[in-house]
Amino acid sequence: MTSSEGCLHCADPVDMAPGDPERVVVQPEKKRLLSRINRIEGQVRGVGRMVEQDRYCVDILTQITAIRAALDSVALQLLEDHAHGCVSRAIAAGEGEEAIAELIDVVRKLKG
Amino acid sequence: MTSSEGCLHCADPVDMAPGDPERVVVQPEKKRLLSRINRIEGQVRGVGRMVEQDRYCVDILTQITAIRAALDSVALQLLEDHAHGCVSRAIAAGEGEEAIAELIDVVRKLKG
Amino acid sequence: MTSSEGCLHCADPVDMAPGDPERVVVQPEKKRLLSRINRIEGQVRGVGRMVEQDRYCVDILTQITAIRAALDSVALQLLEDHAHGCVSRAIAAGEGEEAIAELIDVVRKLKG
Amino acid sequence: MTSSEGCLHCADPVDMAPGDPERVVVQPEKKRLLSRINRIEGQVRGVGRMVEQDRYCVDILTQITAIRAALDSVALQLLEDHAHGCVSRAIAAGEGEEAIAELIDVVRKLKG
Repeated sequence: MTSSEGCLHCADPVDMAPGDPERVVVQPEKKRLLSRINRIEGQVRGVGRMVEQDRYCVDILTQITAIRAALDSVALQLLEDHAHGCVSRAIAAGEGEEAIAELIDVVRKLKG
Repeated sequence: MTSSEGCLHCADPVDMAPGDPERVVVQPEKKRLLSRINRIEGQVRGVGRMVEQDRYCVDILTQITAIRAALDSVALQLLEDHAHGCVSRAIAAGEGEEAIAELIDVVRKLKG
Repeated sequence: MTSSEGCLHCADPVDMAPGDPERVVVQPEKKRLLSRINRIEGQVRGVGRMVEQDRYCVDILTQITAIRAALDSVALQLLEDHAHGCVSRAIAAGEGEEAIAELIDVVRKLKG
Repeated sequence: MTSSEGCLHCADPVDMAPGDPERVVVQPEKKRLLSRINRIEGQVRGVGRMVEQDRYCVDILTQITAIRAALDSVALQLLEDHAHGCVSRAIAAGEGEEAIAELIDVVRKLKG
């Protein structure tokens, strides 16, 4: 189930957003996720301002590590919901091999 | 030279921006740094849109790992310039101990 | 399925090693895994020798990063086999919630 | 000061071990460093035993994350001593550029 084939397991018919049915996953924590991502966007803008204002290097670096931690936390939430949703359904439908390989690939990338 | 005392070594008199002289560091790659941070801000906004549009989890996670890599690269640039600037001047002035302890502390946080 | 309750799903009766059946998981790549771990042990011993022989710091640090990469690779192999084995069987048996929470917890620790 | 040229700054004549003077750095915390590396070697051997004994995957993975944390801590100690020793002396001698580039390169590798 490479991303191009999307993940039909997740999109219960009733939740299918309009548009391309192949790639639809309604995140269970959508609203909270959006507000966290929004906050991260503001933090990145803040780092830009700190460079603009010639702030001390270490202060800027400390702010970047905070942004990374926030991003990692969003990523782990997405990963957990993906495992509970897409991967579980694929396994329950007897198609776990590919879903797990894809999951481990994401973990490898996230480990950096 | 904790961040509160700022880093007088870096701010050559001629570069001193107006405002608080205690905390001023003009980044050598300021313009390029700002455009990189700007691009990262756009990427974070893009992740928000992907969640908004119920995009496939793995696609969103892949985009987050790209943002992390971009952030890490900005952080390493800042760290290198900090070492060449602030830390080197502190060492040359015989005040390296604190500057190095602060540098290693940033490395510890960046390692995550 | 916390580690104390072990993982009965993985240990097919025929493979059950003697001793405590509660904690038995026969790794599918056991032999290869053992030789990789053996090699890592030798590399760590090598780092000790480098310190003993007062070798240049950067050479020792480079060797440590190689050991970390080898450890990470063993960990990802174990994680993938765990997901294909323990987690998949727990999900197929309708007990995926706990197995996935445990999986994500390991990912969080591995991310460091 | 690439590792092949070694770091003459660090090796005070009186501490020069026999053998190749080009690559000699006597670590300030040598004894403690050796005992920490020794312990890590034992931990890796322990992971081998856990695989041998078919222990539960998550228990083995948890032990690997502990080894990684111990390795990272040894690496940061080496990095700090390197910065206080080799890098500081190179900077004080007006040869900081290369020493700092080498330091940042190690940080990049350690970040993984």
